[in-house]
Amino acid sequence: MRIALGLAARGLGNTWPNPAVGCVIVKDGRIVGRGWTQVGGRPHAETVALQQAGESARGATAYVTLEPCAHHGKTPPCAEALVSAGVSRCIVALEDPDARVAGRGLTLLREAGIDVAVGYLRNAAAELNTGFLLSRERNRPAVTLKLAVSLDGRIGTHSGDSKWITSPVARMRAHLLRAQHDAVMVGSNTALQDDPDLTCRLPGLPKRPAVRIILDGRLRLSLTSKVVATAKQTPTWIITREDVEPARRQAFEDCGVEVIAVEPDEAGFPALAPAFAILAERGLTRILVEGGGKLAASLIRADLVDRMIWFRAPSVIGGDGLPGIAAFGIDTVAEAPRWQRVRADILGDDLLETFIRPL
Amino acid sequence: MRIALGLAARGLGNTWPNPAVGCVIVKDGRIVGRGWTQVGGRPHAETVALQQAGESARGATAYVTLEPCAHHGKTPPCAEALVSAGVSRCIVALEDPDARVAGRGLTLLREAGIDVAVGYLRNAAAELNTGFLLSRERNRPAVTLKLAVSLDGRIGTHSGDSKWITSPVARMRAHLLRAQHDAVMVGSNTALQDDPDLTCRLPGLPKRPAVRIILDGRLRLSLTSKVVATAKQTPTWIITREDVEPARRQAFEDCGVEVIAVEPDEAGFPALAPAFAILAERGLTRILVEGGGKLAASLIRADLVDRMIWFRAPSVIGGDGLPGIAAFGIDTVAEAPRWQRVRADILGDDLLETFIRPL
Repeated sequence: MRIALGLAARGLGNTWPNPAVGCVIVKDGRIVGRGWTQVGGRPHAETVALQQAGESARGATAYVTLEPCAHHGKTPPCAEALVSAGVSRCIVALEDPDARVAGRGLTLLREAGIDVAVGYLRNAAAELNTGFLLSRERNRPAVTLKLAVSLDGRIGTHSGDSKWITSPVARMRAHLLRAQHDAVMVGSNTALQDDPDLTCRLPGLPKRPAVRIILDGRLRLSLTSKVVATAKQTPTWIITREDVEPARRQAFEDCGVEVIAVEPDEAGFPALAPAFAILAERGLTRILVEGGGKLAASLIRADLVDRMIWFRAPSVIGGDGLPGIAAFGIDTVAEAPRWQRVRADILGDDLLETFIRPL
Repeated sequence: MRIALGLAARGLGNTWPNPAVGCVIVKDGRIVGRGWTQVGGRPHAETVALQQAGESARGATAYVTLEPCAHHGKTPPCAEALVSAGVSRCIVALEDPDARVAGRGLTLLREAGIDVAVGYLRNAAAELNTGFLLSRERNRPAVTLKLAVSLDGRIGTHSGDSKWITSPVARMRAHLLRAQHDAVMVGSNTALQDDPDLTCRLPGLPKRPAVRIILDGRLRLSLTSKVVATAKQTPTWIITREDVEPARRQAFEDCGVEVIAVEPDEAGFPALAPAFAILAERGLTRILVEGGGKLAASLIRADLVDRMIWFRAPSVIGGDGLPGIAAFGIDTVAEAPRWQRVRADILGDDLLETFIRPL
């Protein structure tokens, strides 16, 4: 199952709206088939592994990181394919909460006489598929907040200079994060200040470009900015207020931008909860938020951050620098949200820490 | 020599104005004597080790972390003691830059026919004795800046609440740092806000209390504050401007505080360079600076920080929190001072990182 989870992880960022699944088929103690969900979600992991196994699948054990599907979609259901191939045992890490599956895959396998066991490495599988699970269970994608800061938590100087705080190896790792997410999101200040192109510039990656999302309540972004100018090549979505000027909106749409309009929140920004519901409905399961400080603060205030990744350079910028996280309204240390460190890695001169929100 | 350096480290914080030295005497492959500089600087490491070795010192090899002294101070010189004991070899890590020694110890040993080798683990010995070396070579103590911050680099909320950002185990480690320094320094804002007692509250420690130093340009500190009220029990020094009101200064002195008056700098604060020169002349070799943000920024601006120790809790306070390091006047990321990470330790929920200023 660990191998199957490793295979599943290869699909992260490339399989939406489908989950990233891994499958390993074992016959007489040897691996005869390996598969993971392919780009765009098809074919499924089981299909790939069964094809590789061929006749060897008969009487074999299949390890699958998520309950095999039972519904006829673009392809026949995987549960049926496992039955037809003659698999005799199926070990599943996690049930699929999707309303079209939700136990029916397991039932189909059991009714065909396959020996089914569920729950092996369940937590690891749930962690891997947190985006898919959240999109099904809470109608929002999983949110990873990435920050690249100095020791004193600054993402730039008072003048807005931010290139570069972290080292080249840290920035390459940040590009890998983009490849592992369905979408990359920034706030309008960051988009205006840095004019980023928000693409993944790593050799061989990405298999499928991440959707670029800019939260821009008043459509302040320039039509000649990099993200807008290249919107016809790389998907670009702007989340804005529903009361923006229609002509302005149309101008963005003419450039190839998909404009998502939601009601404003109390502060006048596009409300995050309905925006994220729309993103989930459009199939996004994993969003990487790259700043700036105000968007990060809004997400933390709304408790919408599932994972935080801090790249930290051994430099000091001082109290007039741009904060990585803006004010979000706490008065005492006791109110400060706490996180759980799950990894700490030295990355050249920088430190990379990964946190999850404790349950 | 590694053992001798380990022994020497036991004296850190307790030996000023003397250096913390370690000595190991080896005879026929066995350690026959071990010593380190005792509290207050006497007896010296060599004296302790020779006493333990007794007659076994004859023909033995002595490992000493610093050149043995050659001058008659409160005790006879250690170089003479090594000669009298009949030691036949002496391995020394580092020459003593003190004008009264400066090679004379080595000469004295060599003239007595002892086989002398110098420079073994020199860098480690220099690192250990950085405070002593700086006080002799640059007329200032070594400065360790300690910060206890949230992930976003905050030492408190906007309301000044700061108890507690880091975990109990991190705070205990911070108390150990106090024990390993000759003095603990804070700025007046921190002293006024927190009313700290700045003592080391660890069982069995300290052997000798660290001097408490408050940088308070206008003597705003209250006479009933903890540090002033206990100044007769635990040494308490206040660095202030030379133009403070004499009656106010006298009131502090009556409480047992030693007042050190220096000229103001451009910003009106007590000038750091002359203040630190006075501290070195009074024998301090190692100062732990515990905040707040303005003092930290002044020290960084003046390039007076030799070592930084960051305790970092997995919490987020936000952009309106108190910065661990205030503004110190840089405009671009390229100007941000950079540090070298020499350690990173997980400490309960917190992370402890140690940095030195690259040469």
